[in-house]
Amino acid sequence: MSRIAEVRVTPILISDPPLLNLQGVHQPYTPRTIVEVITESGAVGLGETYGDTDYLKLAEAFAPELVGAELVVNTLPADVARCLERVGAERVDNTVQAEGLRGSRTMTKIALSVSSAFEVAIWDALGHELGLPVHALLGGKVRDAVEYSAYLFYRWAEHPEPDEPKDDWGAALDPEGVVAQAKRMSDDYGFSSFKLKGGVFEPKQEVAAARALAEAFPGQPVRLDPNGAWSVATSLEVAAALEDVLEYLEDPTTGTANMAEVARKTSLPLATNMCVTAFDEVPEAFKTDAVQVVLSDHHYWGGLRATQDLAAVCRTFGVGISMHSNTHLGISLAAMTQVAATIPGLRYACDTHRPWQTEDVITQPHTFSGGKIAVPDTPGLGVELDREALAKLHERWQQSDVRRRDDAAAMRRVHPDFTAPKFPRW
Amino acid sequence: MSRIAEVRVTPILISDPPLLNLQGVHQPYTPRTIVEVITESGAVGLGETYGDTDYLKLAEAFAPELVGAELVVNTLPADVARCLERVGAERVDNTVQAEGLRGSRTMTKIALSVSSAFEVAIWDALGHELGLPVHALLGGKVRDAVEYSAYLFYRWAEHPEPDEPKDDWGAALDPEGVVAQAKRMSDDYGFSSFKLKGGVFEPKQEVAAARALAEAFPGQPVRLDPNGAWSVATSLEVAAALEDVLEYLEDPTTGTANMAEVARKTSLPLATNMCVTAFDEVPEAFKTDAVQVVLSDHHYWGGLRATQDLAAVCRTFGVGISMHSNTHLGISLAAMTQVAATIPGLRYACDTHRPWQTEDVITQPHTFSGGKIAVPDTPGLGVELDREALAKLHERWQQSDVRRRDDAAAMRRVHPDFTAPKFPRW
Repeated sequence: MSRIAEVRVTPILISDPPLLNLQGVHQPYTPRTIVEVITESGAVGLGETYGDTDYLKLAEAFAPELVGAELVVNTLPADVARCLERVGAERVDNTVQAEGLRGSRTMTKIALSVSSAFEVAIWDALGHELGLPVHALLGGKVRDAVEYSAYLFYRWAEHPEPDEPKDDWGAALDPEGVVAQAKRMSDDYGFSSFKLKGGVFEPKQEVAAARALAEAFPGQPVRLDPNGAWSVATSLEVAAALEDVLEYLEDPTTGTANMAEVARKTSLPLATNMCVTAFDEVPEAFKTDAVQVVLSDHHYWGGLRATQDLAAVCRTFGVGISMHSNTHLGISLAAMTQVAATIPGLRYACDTHRPWQTEDVITQPHTFSGGKIAVPDTPGLGVELDREALAKLHERWQQSDVRRRDDAAAMRRVHPDFTAPKFPRW
Repeated sequence: MSRIAEVRVTPILISDPPLLNLQGVHQPYTPRTIVEVITESGAVGLGETYGDTDYLKLAEAFAPELVGAELVVNTLPADVARCLERVGAERVDNTVQAEGLRGSRTMTKIALSVSSAFEVAIWDALGHELGLPVHALLGGKVRDAVEYSAYLFYRWAEHPEPDEPKDDWGAALDPEGVVAQAKRMSDDYGFSSFKLKGGVFEPKQEVAAARALAEAFPGQPVRLDPNGAWSVATSLEVAAALEDVLEYLEDPTTGTANMAEVARKTSLPLATNMCVTAFDEVPEAFKTDAVQVVLSDHHYWGGLRATQDLAAVCRTFGVGISMHSNTHLGISLAAMTQVAATIPGLRYACDTHRPWQTEDVITQPHTFSGGKIAVPDTPGLGVELDREALAKLHERWQQSDVRRRDDAAAMRRVHPDFTAPKFPRW
């Protein structure tokens, strides 16, 4: 088995539409990190993760350590954690920032987020070396297609400056706009589950949007996710108002104790990608029955094997599992699809931002059929790097000073007095 | 990737010394099932599991279903479970039998025990196909050697009938005998952890044996395992008497609730392979902090991936993990070593019966150095089937009417009034 000959880490900036959330609005451009692991025999493995400075610095520091290593993933989490200790990173605190959309920000999560990009790249390289799809290396697929959901956002029609990236989705700022967006998602991609990112408007309006979705798509699953914006009392009011409509309510409130209190008093399942975002957050949440569905994310849980581990933990405790999505490109979507194919009992359609991304770094961006992506049986992840696109997006990064995602700062360009809210907002 | 061309299931009978436990004594011969999975390109994968009739019947029924299948393991547990439903098995109840030494006996555990033999064989075959060790297919080893413990037994010098298999270990029926056995284990294998199978004599004598071990091997870990023989009160008396001596106390009492009560009242960690033996037994035990170490066993947990899953569940909840052993041969020891090599945080030396087995079905039985087995980097499990030995042990099976392990029946040959004890025995 050939060893790792070269590792490349490339920061890029990708266009992002003005999607709204509790913390503000997506910036016109957001950073991502692309990883290439190249073996002695020339196989190329691809990985992708966050591009904010903390992540990028760590990825760049760790990359040389992999040169000469075997294609082994189990040692990565500890190796990257040691690298982080050695490098030292800017001190990370747990205050809720843009990153607060995916729970607390810790050194461990940063290390795992970086580790995951190398892990995915190693699986991909190993797949190419062996002529096997990644899912076969993960024990084999248990399904031939992975279902995704329509990830609906309140959004502006466009970013404030005229030379910033545009798309043709138009604004969605009320129930009608949300339903129109959902119809296009349904028509263009075949999605039959709908998730609305809430926490943007007052709960009453978001309840109306969820009900409008349920009326427009009778019998199809609808979910609402205010990113922890509500008090326990508000969460329970919304739960009561949508009990007959929602498949699950995602992160209505912040903190495991609050989630547990809501869970005790509603029949709606509660999902999370905020109070259970790392293995050390699992015991309290599961012992108190605070969540009924965990939205995994191979980026910050630490990779594809970690995602399978999380699925095993959830299965053991009778907790459902699905997948969270942050802004991502085709490498990560391929990785999500490969690992989702191997997880027994994945009952909920996974989230994806893919329809919102207008750029990619792979030669053939994924297509959806009936809301699903077919699981490829070609070697590795089944995607190929578009080197021209990568170079172009890297050049954009070089010429820009955007080095992190900051939804609140983006919002302040339009509403100068905007600050990220204190919890609970409502 | 070539598919499965042929699957062979061979029942065998292997010699077993007269080791004593709560349920009786090991029979002179005990059944095992050997599985071979042969690919279209001629790679042979090996697996091994229990040989009692229920297991053998299911393995024989399932084997033909694998012919033509891909080398995929994730679908096996569900496929074998469906096969069991279809075949029907003798009705399985939960009374404690010889099998009660590893907890309750359920249909699920029988299906997983059979599934694991095919899973190991598929990993082995895949390793041979790809030229990779099994540990590489499991994500890569995190250690180069796996540590085992000396598994000490009270035992008779020999079985009652003159023509039955003999060995030169002699009797061990008191603290001196146990220490002598431990010294030979230490000298011959280099073990530096010692586990005494208890539940044979009254607790006072077993406490004396544990203390004698601690005195003979100062500073080296000692464990005591009475297979759930004691009441909560007796467990606490023993725990108090051995608090300064034991690394952990294994299954002092029966049932998760009783274990939790003992755990609340002693500082000794409690280990188990009886109250947590399947994933559905985990939540209650972990929520009540009933156990601090789970002794995994890839046979009844469902294979190597299931063992990794269990390790992830334990790691998540801060529960230690090590490995249980039942009477096994070299194929299973190879499988145990491969998976143990991949598990981060395996802090406790694993149990093995290997020193007690005088026969094997592999050409080069494992050797221990310093109590450890080096993790092989050769393809697959790193062992080769000894076809002559297999044929001989299968012939013994054909000529015998021993079809299950029954320690109580074996004990009645010497003590006609022996019955498996009611719990608690003391």
